[in-house]
Amino acid sequence: MSIQKLENQVMVQNEEFIEKAEQLNPQLFETIVKPEAIVKMKADTNVIHGWRKEYVASASTLKDNEYRKSDSFILDFGNHQVGYLSMNICPAGSPPDAPLKLKLTIGEMPVEMAEPFESYDGWLSSSWLQEETIFVDVLPATITLPRRYSFRYVKFEVVDTSKKYRIVFENVECRAVTSANINAVQTISHQDMLLQKIDEVSIKTLADCMQEVFEDGPKRDRRLWLGDLRLQALANYETFRTNDLVKRCLYLFAGVPNDSGKVPANVFVAPKLIADDIYIFDYSLFYVSTLHDYYFATKDLETLKELWPTAYRQIELALERLDENSIVKDSSDWWSFIDWQEGLNKQTPSQAVLIYTIKQAIRLTEELNALEKNKLVVCLAEIEEATKTYLWDEKQQFFISGSDCQVSWASQIWMVLAGVLTKEENKQLMNRLLKEKPVVGIATPYMYHHLVEALLVSGEKERAISEIKKYWGGMIQDGADTFWELYDPKNKNFSPYGSHLINSYCHAWSCTPTYLIRKYDL
Amino acid sequence: MSIQKLENQVMVQNEEFIEKAEQLNPQLFETIVKPEAIVKMKADTNVIHGWRKEYVASASTLKDNEYRKSDSFILDFGNHQVGYLSMNICPAGSPPDAPLKLKLTIGEMPVEMAEPFESYDGWLSSSWLQEETIFVDVLPATITLPRRYSFRYVKFEVVDTSKKYRIVFENVECRAVTSANINAVQTISHQDMLLQKIDEVSIKTLADCMQEVFEDGPKRDRRLWLGDLRLQALANYETFRTNDLVKRCLYLFAGVPNDSGKVPANVFVAPKLIADDIYIFDYSLFYVSTLHDYYFATKDLETLKELWPTAYRQIELALERLDENSIVKDSSDWWSFIDWQEGLNKQTPSQAVLIYTIKQAIRLTEELNALEKNKLVVCLAEIEEATKTYLWDEKQQFFISGSDCQVSWASQIWMVLAGVLTKEENKQLMNRLLKEKPVVGIATPYMYHHLVEALLVSGEKERAISEIKKYWGGMIQDGADTFWELYDPKNKNFSPYGSHLINSYCHAWSCTPTYLIRKYDL
Repeated sequence: MSIQKLENQVMVQNEEFIEKAEQLNPQLFETIVKPEAIVKMKADTNVIHGWRKEYVASASTLKDNEYRKSDSFILDFGNHQVGYLSMNICPAGSPPDAPLKLKLTIGEMPVEMAEPFESYDGWLSSSWLQEETIFVDVLPATITLPRRYSFRYVKFEVVDTSKKYRIVFENVECRAVTSANINAVQTISHQDMLLQKIDEVSIKTLADCMQEVFEDGPKRDRRLWLGDLRLQALANYETFRTNDLVKRCLYLFAGVPNDSGKVPANVFVAPKLIADDIYIFDYSLFYVSTLHDYYFATKDLETLKELWPTAYRQIELALERLDENSIVKDSSDWWSFIDWQEGLNKQTPSQAVLIYTIKQAIRLTEELNALEKNKLVVCLAEIEEATKTYLWDEKQQFFISGSDCQVSWASQIWMVLAGVLTKEENKQLMNRLLKEKPVVGIATPYMYHHLVEALLVSGEKERAISEIKKYWGGMIQDGADTFWELYDPKNKNFSPYGSHLINSYCHAWSCTPTYLIRKYDL
Repeated sequence: MSIQKLENQVMVQNEEFIEKAEQLNPQLFETIVKPEAIVKMKADTNVIHGWRKEYVASASTLKDNEYRKSDSFILDFGNHQVGYLSMNICPAGSPPDAPLKLKLTIGEMPVEMAEPFESYDGWLSSSWLQEETIFVDVLPATITLPRRYSFRYVKFEVVDTSKKYRIVFENVECRAVTSANINAVQTISHQDMLLQKIDEVSIKTLADCMQEVFEDGPKRDRRLWLGDLRLQALANYETFRTNDLVKRCLYLFAGVPNDSGKVPANVFVAPKLIADDIYIFDYSLFYVSTLHDYYFATKDLETLKELWPTAYRQIELALERLDENSIVKDSSDWWSFIDWQEGLNKQTPSQAVLIYTIKQAIRLTEELNALEKNKLVVCLAEIEEATKTYLWDEKQQFFISGSDCQVSWASQIWMVLAGVLTKEENKQLMNRLLKEKPVVGIATPYMYHHLVEALLVSGEKERAISEIKKYWGGMIQDGADTFWELYDPKNKNFSPYGSHLINSYCHAWSCTPTYLIRKYDL
């Protein structure tokens, strides 16, 4: 074990864990995918972001076209892809007497083909927008772009050739990659065609996010976040069962805690494993959840034994945030994620996450015959009691959060998942929630997942199905090949980053319908 | 021998010649060059193009600087370089949570650092402007750019990182390449410091243009032109004596004539040898010159024997352009280069080039004991006689050209070089030219070279030296590290391509002062 002081954090390195994670580095499965069509994007106020694609010609006709300076075209690969682009470029006319300057714009959505990236002014780095400007000095040439892209569409813009030659594109293709074992998925034939389709798109979303780690989104961030991992792992157990990838990720997080033992919210794996200097209350606790779910999916006791101390430490650290009444302290300087919902107070949902994970920890102590069980049980009783005393508003019949006594969807949903009330009370609470619709709502598919699961655990199966079909079905209706990081049916241009151009349109935390459909037999 | 029909030409392939050229592919000598300084460019109407560089700090301090989004700096490598750039890029601050987007602008002159390439609107391809925008997904990274650049300055613009990290540049360097054998050059210690400096800059210019072939300019065109080759070869015999590179280039041209046997004005060597579809009257004839000069520099009779038919064929083809009076036909649809001078009529200078090269061909027939000698001698006599009859204007005492009887500098200069008049008459003609200064003047260093050589062959050595010092010395005064493709002391922004941004600032045809100084013992 070694300790590394970085600029904003201290990172412990558990070499043994890191080595185990390294040995679990997965094989990537490769598929060669050809474009299907040449398309163009048309402005249309009736579709999401205002752009829809229009068929121009089969991609097989591409090789018959000669392009000159200022020509452009868009290729449609027919579905979402994560992989590497290559092509042959041949000259036509006189010998090429100047380099070719070619701009490629690579995007998941029509809007990325239609609106110039130069217009982007959000607060995430513009470097996530997928584009390349390349110069080709010698033609003909085989071009293999070195970076991995996440896309369905590629726009080619011939910035310049010379007056003496044109160019022809041949064999444009994508070497698509994933570490998901596609063959392991049991196909379902749902009688509800929409649920069937939602299941398929969920699986595609998950597969495209499964690379050397479970990535949050293959276009943006491209890294392992604990909150996303927990949901991806759940979907994986029902589909690919690529369980060693979950194991690898658990070891990666355990490999680089900070000096208090807290696991980071996310890690980077290249050029070498490094913890990001972000620590999030709920994400750290989800280490317990992820280990819990992994163990019950695999019964891998050896891994549970080895990683239990890391998991237990997250509970200990979270308990340090309790006030004298056993309520998670709210403050302006902490971060619990819960959701991107603007104005959401995080106190009560975080209290619920703590309860939820303590219960999972207790179940693990039972498997391990671990001594920590008693302490956790005592602790849990105190916290649940406090929760009902201080966070339940008898008059409103809702859980409240923060000094302003905020009634949010997130608080109710997480308290239901935490099982603080009885099943019947939960059912009533969920019905009250859906009826009264408090204004502090839901911003992300991540929170929508928890809404649906809260409905399911409180016995509202039909309502859960209806929410899935409405929300994830809505994305499909709006053109999703893979499920999106963000989707607000009432504000389809929503982005928490200042521009929907930078949103991820294949995002791990949105892949859970396949888990919900299969786990709960919807 | 095989024949290949291309879109605009028929190309014969003499495999034996092509194979010989291939075997003479030179070794490239490599030197690692580090930047000297961090500089900035300041607007200054008193300097060429309106920009001068200003020292900011030693390049050794670069590694102490951290750069963020929108930061930029310029590195000065201290002299002109042709080669490959590499650097290490390290992150500072939090772990890099977004790719680095970095724009590099690579230029020979301050103006290329100061004026945006987006403003370029000339008629040559903008793809010649040296720039790259790269994305670096994983940091730290060692970046080795795959393309070869011709430059002194590199501008770094950090387009984006993320708010969480900065970057540091270390070990920026250039792997400079040339096929010139620098060690073979005999140093001269001229008592005239300016001539000494002009000699040095000439040699640097030639070295930077010597790669796998004699390139016209390492920044733009980057290929083998016959007109440039002739002058480079002359400079080479006086300096590097890398004579096999001349031999290689002679075989390359002989390898791919058209179906009438005409050699092209230029060839491309990658991905394989191909003739450009440009055939220029004077350039084809200069094949004879280049073979002539090569033979007398090397006495390589075997090569002369093998390539003589190709050379002789150029004369035969040129003779087909003579009218019934033995004068080269003028027309609107031919191209004889001579110079970029606007409005220049090419008839008379082309007639002179024909005479000049026939005389060289006759000298070669003498070495070869070739039967073609008699025909050439008879022919020459007729052409010289016709030249004096039809192109000499007794009243003006100048050679005239075209239907408008144009009196140009080029006509007089080339007729002097062709030796149509006696040495004394030539001397008078050159003095008359310099005194009367006809308006159709000189546009390029290429034509300036011929002016100086015409002065030398007509005995005006002091005037020749004065012209060299004025013209090439003027470039040095204006900041040349290597001699420029174009230099008009009266219009320093001159470009025949619509923008001085695209001009080449290290250009083969400008390297001849070292030849003139050494050959004529100036």
